[in-house]
Amino acid sequence: MTENAFRLDVVLIHYPVVNKKQEIVGSAVTNLDLHDIARAGRTFGVRTYWVVTPYQQQQELSADIAGHWTEGYGGTVNPDRAEALSIIQIRASLDQVLTEMGAQGGKKPLVVATSAGKACRKMSFQAVRKALEEGESVLLLFGTGWGLAPEVMDRADAALPPIRGAGTYNHLSVRSAASICLDRLCGDREDGG
Amino acid sequence: MTENAFRLDVVLIHYPVVNKKQEIVGSAVTNLDLHDIARAGRTFGVRTYWVVTPYQQQQELSADIAGHWTEGYGGTVNPDRAEALSIIQIRASLDQVLTEMGAQGGKKPLVVATSAGKACRKMSFQAVRKALEEGESVLLLFGTGWGLAPEVMDRADAALPPIRGAGTYNHLSVRSAASICLDRLCGDREDGG
Repeated sequence: MTENAFRLDVVLIHYPVVNKKQEIVGSAVTNLDLHDIARAGRTFGVRTYWVVTPYQQQQELSADIAGHWTEGYGGTVNPDRAEALSIIQIRASLDQVLTEMGAQGGKKPLVVATSAGKACRKMSFQAVRKALEEGESVLLLFGTGWGLAPEVMDRADAALPPIRGAGTYNHLSVRSAASICLDRLCGDREDGG
Repeated sequence: MTENAFRLDVVLIHYPVVNKKQEIVGSAVTNLDLHDIARAGRTFGVRTYWVVTPYQQQQELSADIAGHWTEGYGGTVNPDRAEALSIIQIRASLDQVLTEMGAQGGKKPLVVATSAGKACRKMSFQAVRKALEEGESVLLLFGTGWGLAPEVMDRADAALPPIRGAGTYNHLSVRSAASICLDRLCGDREDGG
């Protein structure tokens, strides 16, 4: 399957997420969320990158983009991109992802949310990395817009702490946040200088 | 100035970079390269995010995008984005950036290149982080397209090792690579779980 033994999947949720006013909304799929997170996912050994949107037109758009790079012209000129985008699966809801992962047999994955704000049931990056190293299946949730809706946060078994530098500003794009989380969880720790 | 004491600047080079065939080319500025790297830069305490392109139209486009979010309508509806994009400065060449940094007084910065491939004069993330912690000024170079041209690599005092997961695939977007590098160099190491 993948080159490492980690059983890590990623979900990008487009509904339900919150907007700036903390209202529940659905967001549009964007091209670079598909590309950047698939490329980071492939780099760090993610098995499946689940793109969740309940809107049929958005599902079709996502499938068209992924298809162009995996089966269409894009893949022939850029096989590296085909390899990355081949880990994408598009589904209507988080429930559907969890049901399918359950049907693949084995234990229910540890569902780990991410948030730039305060969250309950915090679990450190180190602890999630250890769970992966011990062979546990982990499903990592990312939200578009202003982040995952409370009802999604409630579905998670745990949440990673927010990513911070030295200051208090932490308005990363979901592409940056996902890349950093994957590096912290699966990156090569041998810092060959 | 910034919330931490690090003297770290980032440069995104649009010319000279290489294409897939390792030919020297210029690339177009993209909206999300400006946003994502500015947001990550602001999160991790970067002083200035230099956007380098010799093409006047591309300089104007970059200034329009940054201006919309720092002085225009974008900034009024999203002050967090204004704060991020305010660290952007657009210049025609790496030389110009180095000259200006030199004119600001003080020691020449340590110029550190990034590359997904083999590079000479490797310096570990840990060593660059230590240099920053000791108050050294560091200028971190990122390339668009298929990466920095050899003549830019040659200008650097050192190069960070490629970012890798467990496998051999390492085709990250420059947005992901920059985010991960900044986290490795400046991220909060207290992993509060």
